[in-house]
Order: sequence, then C-alpha cells, then structure tokens
Amino acid sequence: MDRLKVYILGATGLVGQRYVQLLARHPWFEVVGLAASERSAGRRLGEVGWVLDEPPPPEVAEMRIEKLDVDKVPRVDFVFSALPSEVAARVEPELAARGYVILSNSSNMRMDPDVPLIIPEVNPDDLSLVERQREGRGWRGAVVKKPNCTTTILNLPLKPVLDEWGIERVHVVTMQALSGAGYSGVPSVAIADNLIPFIRGEEEKVVGETRKILKADFEIYVTTTRVNVVDGHTEVVYVDTRRDFDVTAVAEVLERFRGPPQELKLPTAPERPIEVRRQADRPQPRLDRMAGRGMAVVVGRIRRLASRKLSFIVLGHNTIRGAAGNSILTAELMAAQSR
Amino acid sequence: MDRLKVYILGATGLVGQRYVQLLARHPWFEVVGLAASERSAGRRLGEVGWVLDEPPPPEVAEMRIEKLDVDKVPRVDFVFSALPSEVAARVEPELAARGYVILSNSSNMRMDPDVPLIIPEVNPDDLSLVERQREGRGWRGAVVKKPNCTTTILNLPLKPVLDEWGIERVHVVTMQALSGAGYSGVPSVAIADNLIPFIRGEEEKVVGETRKILKADFEIYVTTTRVNVVDGHTEVVYVDTRRDFDVTAVAEVLERFRGPPQELKLPTAPERPIEVRRQADRPQPRLDRMAGRGMAVVVGRIRRLASRKLSFIVLGHNTIRGAAGNSILTAELMAAQSR
Amino acid sequence: MDRLKVYILGATGLVGQRYVQLLARHPWFEVVGLAASERSAGRRLGEVGWVLDEPPPPEVAEMRIEKLDVDKVPRVDFVFSALPSEVAARVEPELAARGYVILSNSSNMRMDPDVPLIIPEVNPDDLSLVERQREGRGWRGAVVKKPNCTTTILNLPLKPVLDEWGIERVHVVTMQALSGAGYSGVPSVAIADNLIPFIRGEEEKVVGETRKILKADFEIYVTTTRVNVVDGHTEVVYVDTRRDFDVTAVAEVLERFRGPPQELKLPTAPERPIEVRRQADRPQPRLDRMAGRGMAVVVGRIRRLASRKLSFIVLGHNTIRGAAGNSILTAELMAAQSR
Amino acid sequence: MDRLKVYILGATGLVGQRYVQLLARHPWFEVVGLAASERSAGRRLGEVGWVLDEPPPPEVAEMRIEKLDVDKVPRVDFVFSALPSEVAARVEPELAARGYVILSNSSNMRMDPDVPLIIPEVNPDDLSLVERQREGRGWRGAVVKKPNCTTTILNLPLKPVLDEWGIERVHVVTMQALSGAGYSGVPSVAIADNLIPFIRGEEEKVVGETRKILKADFEIYVTTTRVNVVDGHTEVVYVDTRRDFDVTAVAEVLERFRGPPQELKLPTAPERPIEVRRQADRPQPRLDRMAGRGMAVVVGRIRRLASRKLSFIVLGHNTIRGAAGNSILTAELMAAQSR
Repeated sequence: MDRLKVYILGATGLVGQRYVQLLARHPWFEVVGLAASERSAGRRLGEVGWVLDEPPPPEVAEMRIEKLDVDKVPRVDFVFSALPSEVAARVEPELAARGYVILSNSSNMRMDPDVPLIIPEVNPDDLSLVERQREGRGWRGAVVKKPNCTTTILNLPLKPVLDEWGIERVHVVTMQALSGAGYSGVPSVAIADNLIPFIRGEEEKVVGETRKILKADFEIYVTTTRVNVVDGHTEVVYVDTRRDFDVTAVAEVLERFRGPPQELKLPTAPERPIEVRRQADRPQPRLDRMAGRGMAVVVGRIRRLASRKLSFIVLGHNTIRGAAGNSILTAELMAAQSR
Repeated sequence: MDRLKVYILGATGLVGQRYVQLLARHPWFEVVGLAASERSAGRRLGEVGWVLDEPPPPEVAEMRIEKLDVDKVPRVDFVFSALPSEVAARVEPELAARGYVILSNSSNMRMDPDVPLIIPEVNPDDLSLVERQREGRGWRGAVVKKPNCTTTILNLPLKPVLDEWGIERVHVVTMQALSGAGYSGVPSVAIADNLIPFIRGEEEKVVGETRKILKADFEIYVTTTRVNVVDGHTEVVYVDTRRDFDVTAVAEVLERFRGPPQELKLPTAPERPIEVRRQADRPQPRLDRMAGRGMAVVVGRIRRLASRKLSFIVLGHNTIRGAAGNSILTAELMAAQSR
Repeated sequence: MDRLKVYILGATGLVGQRYVQLLARHPWFEVVGLAASERSAGRRLGEVGWVLDEPPPPEVAEMRIEKLDVDKVPRVDFVFSALPSEVAARVEPELAARGYVILSNSSNMRMDPDVPLIIPEVNPDDLSLVERQREGRGWRGAVVKKPNCTTTILNLPLKPVLDEWGIERVHVVTMQALSGAGYSGVPSVAIADNLIPFIRGEEEKVVGETRKILKADFEIYVTTTRVNVVDGHTEVVYVDTRRDFDVTAVAEVLERFRGPPQELKLPTAPERPIEVRRQADRPQPRLDRMAGRGMAVVVGRIRRLASRKLSFIVLGHNTIRGAAGNSILTAELMAAQSR
Repeated sequence: MDRLKVYILGATGLVGQRYVQLLARHPWFEVVGLAASERSAGRRLGEVGWVLDEPPPPEVAEMRIEKLDVDKVPRVDFVFSALPSEVAARVEPELAARGYVILSNSSNMRMDPDVPLIIPEVNPDDLSLVERQREGRGWRGAVVKKPNCTTTILNLPLKPVLDEWGIERVHVVTMQALSGAGYSGVPSVAIADNLIPFIRGEEEKVVGETRKILKADFEIYVTTTRVNVVDGHTEVVYVDTRRDFDVTAVAEVLERFRGPPQELKLPTAPERPIEVRRQADRPQPRLDRMAGRGMAVVVGRIRRLASRKLSFIVLGHNTIRGAAGNSILTAELMAAQSR
C-alpha cells in the first residue's frame, strides 16, 4: 500500500518535533514536507535545535524546512498543524477552504459547534461534524481539532466513569509539565525550587472542552498549576457520581475501556488507553508518562472517600497523548474509516 | 526580665535546626541545652551538618549536643520536642509526668481528647485542656501539640471562612515540600523531573486534626502530594460555604484575621497571620514562603466559581509556621497568659 | 550627612532588581529614579514582576519607572547601569560625556585600556584610569566597569595567591547559576535534569579580564558551564604556583585578605572578602552564596595535589558580588576617596 | 545456540535493575536467578520498587529474589555482581574459589595487580590476568572488575588521544549524576537548587584506575562534583599532549576509535564507542546519555587552547556504560573469546 502523504506546520516547536518523531517510519503516513516561521525557513531540521531526548531520525534531520505559505503547501492527505493559535486562526481556514484536511493542535475554533474536538476513544462519532462544517462553511477540506492536553488526559478516565456510574460534580487540580508551555514558556529561574499556581486560559478550556466532548452538564471546577517536571501532566480528580461504586469495579472498568482505535488496531493506538497502577505512590510522571509509548494515560490512587465520592489521579504525556499523538491517532481513524 | 529557659529535643533534624535558628536571640527564651540521639551526642551543633540556608548563630554552633536522657533534662520552662513519633511516644509522657511542659511536633497523642492541638490564632482556648490533661493523667507538666504542617497551613484561612460564611464541604489537594519528609525523606533520584502523588498517613491526619481544631463537622476530602520544592507547602482548596460570599469580602476577611498572638504582640507573631496576594500567579513557594518571617500563610487566587463555591490557594512555610515557629508561638502565648 | 543621589538604568531585570534591593535603605545612597525600556515605562516597580525571594522594599515598589532617555536623567552622583550591552554601548558614553559617573555592569568597553575594571579589594588603584579616560575622551563624567561575574569570583582568591606564591598557570571549570543568564536566559525545559556545557562569550571574557585586572601574564584556561542552580557560581580552580606552599598557609592567606573596602569599613563591604570552609563538601551554592550578605566569596577544598600544584573551589553570589553588589561597593569606594 | 546462564547479585539497587533491564531478552545470556539482601528475599522483583524509567520486562518482574547465599548460587556461566563493596569483598572471593566467573561492579580488589579492570575497547588484553589470578590464588573461577563509572567514561577518549599524540598531563573536573550515589545516596533537600563539590573516595579511584588501565604515567588531577541530573556524568578534560594536534584530527581519531567489541559485533557493543558532537553546547546529559543505547560516550567542545593543549567534554551514562553495560560487554567479550 502506498503511504498517505502528510505535511507538518510549525515543525520546529516542542509539539512540532513530537510530530516529526512520531511520524518518522510511520507505517501509513509519509512526511513530504515541513513548514515553520521565516526564522527557521531554509534550514535543515537537524540544525534548528532538537530538544527531545531521542535524536531526530536521520532521514528527517535532513529535511529542509519551508517557509509557511498557504500557496505552497503540496497536495497531501493530511496537514498536521502545531502553529501558534494566532497564526493558526488565519492559516487553517484558508487551507481548509482550499481542500486540505487539517489536524490541528491550536485552541482557535475548538469550541465552534461544527468543529470536531476529538479524543478517538472518547468521542469518535464527532468526526461526523466534518460534513456539517463543509456544508456550513463551503469548504472542501476540514479542520479537526485535538482538545487541550489537560482536557484529553482528564476525559479519558471520565468517559467510562460517566457511562457506568454517572457524574454530578467534578473537582480537578492539575500539576502540569514545563513542556506544556512550549520551549521558552517557563524560564528556569521562575520554576527552580518553586511551582506556579496559574496557567493563563487553561482552566476555562478544560471546563468548556470537557462539556463539549462528553456532552454532559455536570458541575466541573478546575485549578491548573505548573510544576518542575519536563513532561507529563498529573491531575487529581474528585468525582461525585450519580450511583455508588466500589473501587475494584472502577479499576476494572477503566482497564477494560476501549474505543475504535483499539478495535481497528490503529498504528499509534495503545493496547489499553487507560492503565491502572495499584501501588500507593503512582502514577508518577517520570515513571509512567511513557506508558503505551506515551499514548496511554495512567490512573492510580482510586479511592472511595464516601458514598458516591470517587477520587483518583490520572497522568498522561502532554505532548504525545495530549498533543501530537492524539492528532495522529485521529488521522489514522479518519484514514481507516474512509477506506 | 530574666529570659525563660528552654531545652530542645531532637535538635539535629530539619525541624530541630529550625528551632535552634528561631530561638537564637529570642527576646523571651534562652536555649540552655540540646539533646539528640546517641549518634550526634557529644558533638557541637556546628559539626553535625547544618542544612538551613543561613548558617547557625555562632553561640549556638558551639553548644554541645547531649544524649537524650529523661533523667538529665535540666529544669526549664519549656521543652521543645522535634523527636520522631516513636521516640516521642515514649519520652514525652515521662517528661510530662516529671513536670516538664513540652511543646511537641510529633504526631503521637495529637488526637487524644485531653491534648491541646494548637494554632495560636485559631484555637487558643484549647490550651485550657492542659488542666484536664493534668487531672486525668496525674501529670505535673503537660504535653501540647502542634498540628501536622499541612493542617496548620489549611486551618488558618479556613477558620475565618468558617466563622463568616460557614462551611459545608472542603476539597483539598496539596503540593508539599521536600523538607516536610525530613532530611533523608525523599531521595533526589526519586523526585528529579518528577512528583510523588502520595504521602503516607498525611491525608488522614489533615482530616482528623482539622475536625478537632475547628470543632466542625463539614465534609473534608484531602489528597497530598510531594513536589520538587525545598520549603513551602501549597494547598489548592475548594470550599462549599453555607452562605454566599463575594471575592472582595473574602480577601478582606482573611487579611483582617487576627488572634491573641497579634493582640499580645508576641515576639514570633506575624503582623498578619494571613497575607493575600492579588497577582494572578501567586502564592509561589520560593517568593512567598518567608512572608511574615515564615509565620504568615499567603493566600491567592481567591475565586467564586459558583454560588457558595469558593476556591483559593494557600501557601505556608512548612518547617516554620508548619512546625517549629508554630510551637514557639504557642509557648509565647502560654508564657504571656501565665504572667 | 545628606545622602548621595543615585539613578538606576535597567531596573527591571534580575541585576536591576538586585540594585534596587541593595540600595534600599542604603546609608550613603538614595535612589532618586529608575529607568527601563519602553515596555515597563510608566509602571510601578512593584507591578513589573519582582523575581527576587525577598519582596521589594515598599518605598521602592511604589517608584514609577521612567523611560530611558539620556536627556531626562536627573543630576545624580552615580548612575548604576544594568543595561543590555548593546544599549549600554550607545547610552553610557553619551551620559559620561554629559558628566555622569556611571558604574556599569555590561561588557562593552570593559577591555578598553582607559576604562577601570574594578574589584574594590583587588585592583582599587585602577580607579585612577578615570583621569586618563576623561582626558582622552573629553568626558566630564566617567564609565567604570565591574568585571564579568565569573571573573570577579575567580580573581578574589587568585589575587592573594598571586601575591604570595606567584602563578604560572590556571585551569578553571565553572558551574554557573541560572540567574547569570538573566530572567529568560535559560528555558526550564532546557535545563531540567540536565546541564549545558557552554556559555557564549563567557570564557573569552574571563581570560581577558583576569589578565587586565591582575596585570599578570600567566596561562589561563577556562571552561564555563550552566547548571540547575538559581544563584551562585561555583568554580573549580587548579593553580600551578611559582613557589611551593602548604595548604594551611593558603587558607590563612585567603582568610586574612583585605582591601580598602574593609579598611574604610564601606557599608556594603563584607568583613572578610574571602571565607574559607574546612568541611570536605563545601562550598555549596545554596548554603554559602549569602556569605557576607552575598559579598564574600567562599573557598573550600584547598588541596596541594603535588609540589606547586594548588587546587581549590570558589563560590560567589553572581548577582550580588558578581554584579550589583560589586558596583555599589566600587561607588562607595569612589565616594569615600573623594571626601 | 543455547544461551549462557547468568545470575545477578544485588539485583534490587539502581545498578542491579540496570542489569535486569539490559539482560532481559539478551541474545546470548539468560538470567536464571537473582539474589539480594535478606530484606528483599522472597519477593518478586516487580514488587520491590522499580526505579528506572522503563518498566521491568514482565518475565523478569515475576522472578522471585533469592537471599544471597554462596552455597545456593546455581551453576552459571557468569555471575554479575552489583553488591556493596563491603559485601562483595567477602562474597566474591568465595564464589571465585568455587569456580564462578564474576563480573563485578564494586571497588574492592580493583587495584590488585592480578585483577583485570576492563573497558572492553580500551584494555581487552588485560583479561589475560585471569590466568595469573587463578594460579596465584588457587581459584577455579575468577573476579573481573569494571572500573569506577567516571574512570570508564574518561578513559574511552583518553585512550585514542594517548595512542595518537601522547599525554603529559590531564586536569579533569566532573559533574556527576545522582544515580551514581545509589537510590538513597543524595537526599533531595541536599541537592535542590544546589550542587555538592565532593564525592568521597572518587577522585583517588579515577587517578589510580586510569594509571592501571592506560599503563601510562602522566600527571592526572581530578575534582569530582555532584549535580542535579538523574543519569549521565559530564567531565571537562584538559589534556597536555606530547605532540601537537589539530581539532579536526582529534574529532576524527575519536570517531574512528574501535575495539574488539565492534570487530566482533558483540550484542551490547555500540556501533561507535565515542560519538562526537559538533554543536557548541553539547554534550548534554538529558540529550546525549542514551547515545549508542547508553553504551557510547559523547565528546564535544574539542578545542586547541594552545600548542599541545587540548580540551574537550565527555559525557557517558553512568549506570549503563559506566556500570552494568560495561560488565555485560566484558562478559560478551569473554564468551566470544572462549568459543
């Protein structure tokens, strides 16, 4: 089978580099080009400053970065976009109008009712919004969004809990990784021996996006903080359920949870989207963030604090499952469905 | 006025060193001796390995550490104890029986109904339990406890909120400092680029102690975690109040909160036990933990998330207000009351 | 006595804030104004983002930041400049021509033969270059530079060793703090669980400046690296001396070292510019950087590795002794000499 | 081919776990048993507290840990020992006398003249000392040591430099990782926002072992420090060579360096034992420690500071190439040679 052609916008940032890493040697997708801002244009990816722990695959390190120009994007099956929101807001609609299918990380348009905001195991059916989007906007292509990283990691375990026991109320406190702010987002002198109890705009996103994805109207209260961890968002979650539960059943339901990516054995799908740890002191970012090659979230400390009062901690890799990996999985699902 | 004589048990640990630091040049108290385990006995404090940022005061660095022996504690007005709980459980009752008044940091006996568990601004009247303790146990001395550090930092802002608006339900998630586990408590390889979402025994203490201190029966749910910060516990708090409030009023009530330590102008009392920060990204451990010389807690991000739904973040220095400083303030209150 | 009037250029950066902190309540100097780039102009210093551990003194927090404009600098006795080098290169000569005496942190002009590059205990006599500077350039004012922070910390112990035993060759490896790169200089994701073995331009500065300051022609080899420490540069130094020594004598000579700041009891002078630690594992940045209120350097691990082969480790606070504090001390020396 | 049987002593520590990880699915070796101290005996490896980033291979996680007992070690081809030195000093000779061939990490016996101290690419011929050891001690088995981790990382690049240009004098300053001190070796409060400029016994080991391995009598001066990095020792090296060189030639000689492991294509051998980075700011621990799956060292910043004055920085993974990996590679070499 010929591989599908894909193009990466914003390939030099932290999420862009994850796209490059995850798409290198992808069985279905072939990266045919990369674009970034003028500053990096013309250089090879390997010269720009690779910041992931593993070096870039040699064949990609040699690729030359193009200047982002909507007129020069080649014909491809999917465009992966890791552009800053303000750039994305201008570029993505133009590309969609010209027929490109864009899997986008940026927050613009996420809450538009005709824009799919997809976690492939949680709300795959929302991909059908693409039809409505094309009709309403007169586009030949489409824009499909991934949620905020914190939203994605939270909604994976909330979904099976919601389906099984119902949810009345959720309190969340997050401890988020540095990479979530981008390469230059958090100065080292600001976070050394410290934490920062605020992330601009983040809490509103998690609240709004969770309601859109789960189509549920429970109360949800969110506080987001930044801690001195490179990768991996940790979220402490209290859930008031509608029906009572026992802890063993919750662990089992979470572990059994599957979606179309597992059924279709998509290349980037983790075997289990939710892994459960029984040790008292897990999940931990450094030990658990690479579960399922960064595509599984890890749940631990499942507790029944009172009747219908559930608590757990969920951790996920913010730039893999929370960003590039989730979009690639979505593209795989779209490709599989369109065969 | 002659200074009151005090003695420190467990002087070589992290909290013991804070006692030494805070009592050096204290206007009312004079350290007449130090005891620690056999391992350190006979050495000078300055030789044992000082771990606080400021060097030990020279006059104290020269003091020779004695081996802990209940028969050899000199006659003093107060004994400050930073012993491990299992040692304290044996030593403190013996000393109390012999007439010593012990201000103790360890968790044994905290929940005994005849043991005062004191935050001087919050429940000073509980010092009257000493009488009951002496009668019931036939002691001439007494054991007075300080709460768990996380409890103390939490209860300072909860008290005025309880008094003003009532409390139905509290959800807490903490991000606690390394020093709370003692000098060797958290190996560096365990916490580098990581956090640990569990502290053994901590959550139960915060729940039980809060109910004892505030004498209130609201629901309280607590999750405690460890982050890579040297000093300063951060706590994210959601409070369901009985009556509605507005954010400005909460800030004012917290800032106006005072107790006997302020009225009596006790030497270790901060001018304001609760400081409120208006900047969106505060409190932060490194920037705020020394507020009020480590004796004030700092509250920020006061939000009204819904009717009767309050949220804020409180930070306090865990080994000063959360430990040694709180006990010294309690001793000052006892000294002032007995004049 | 009326206090001398001083003005701060570049008051919002890390070094600028140190100037503000160290000059608040200074017995000789009164800050009459602050200037920074257009971005901060018009705001109060307390609103700009204070990043030091101690909060800004309230009287300074209220000061309004002016836009940097050479025409609007008031008549003052000293201007302290923490401007970026490229701005300083333009502004400082203009101000000096107009009669201002500028104590400058930036690296431009440091190697000009008519510019004093001063560590007040090491080469105070070089202040006489001001006369030559004024004559040669036709300035009424003057530009006086402080060395690179690493240079200053290195030269304090090298000076007495040079005077006592002579120096043939020096090998240096540094482990430098994050604050040396400025507030945004090192992204947290770049340094977490990492170190960066290169600091652009630093090694050349240390070599060239050391030769200028010590007026000696020994070989000197320098490697500078960045480690995950907020404040405090650590430098491992090997010195091939001309004459043999013993370790005790080196310790004594370093401890006895004094200069005009100590003789004149200048307000910012540490009692001893060099403190020696005998413990095997010192100096350490967190424990020793505030020695002498950040104005002393701390030397440890003095070893005689072979005949005429000396090794030691020196640590100093890079933004106090290495920057703002050194310039203030220089201004104090100039003020004392001109009385 | 049947796999050779191997046994691991001290399997629960940081290096022991690396042995387990690197030997899982090894093409030549099969782990038939694990032993550790009494504390862990009887438990499964997966229950003991796995501390590496990747989870233990499931088949190994199920293995039951045996109590260390020289009478109960099964017949195996190689015993890998990660025991503490004081235990090793007692156990290893007993096992060697009984016929076991032990690849040992601990420092005892390293300097004995009849004990091979092997870096397989550097001094493979020293394996012939085994004959002398057997004769002299009357052992049927043997003890083969790996050097101190810092020594190994240093000697890999020194060897080709010595062979090509000769060495007169070496100055080294190291910045070593936390894992080198073992799991509990460095408390987090000791190293946060800090470094520790001393590692007990380390410098003497590097000096003595380097002379033994390279059989050269150049001067060598070493200072070892600990920095806040999980894995990966960084070493800044100044070499006074006997003959002059140019930088390009040094890079080429290092990159071309090979030994028997590469010629024999041993399973654990990296393709190139020394990788050279040309970027100015490399090597960096987090980005480079996994080069050659942790078995290559990475050299950067090759500079010619003066005639015959070479400087470079070398980085290696201290628990892979510096410990378990080096011993496994040595066993592979012994196995290949005995076929």
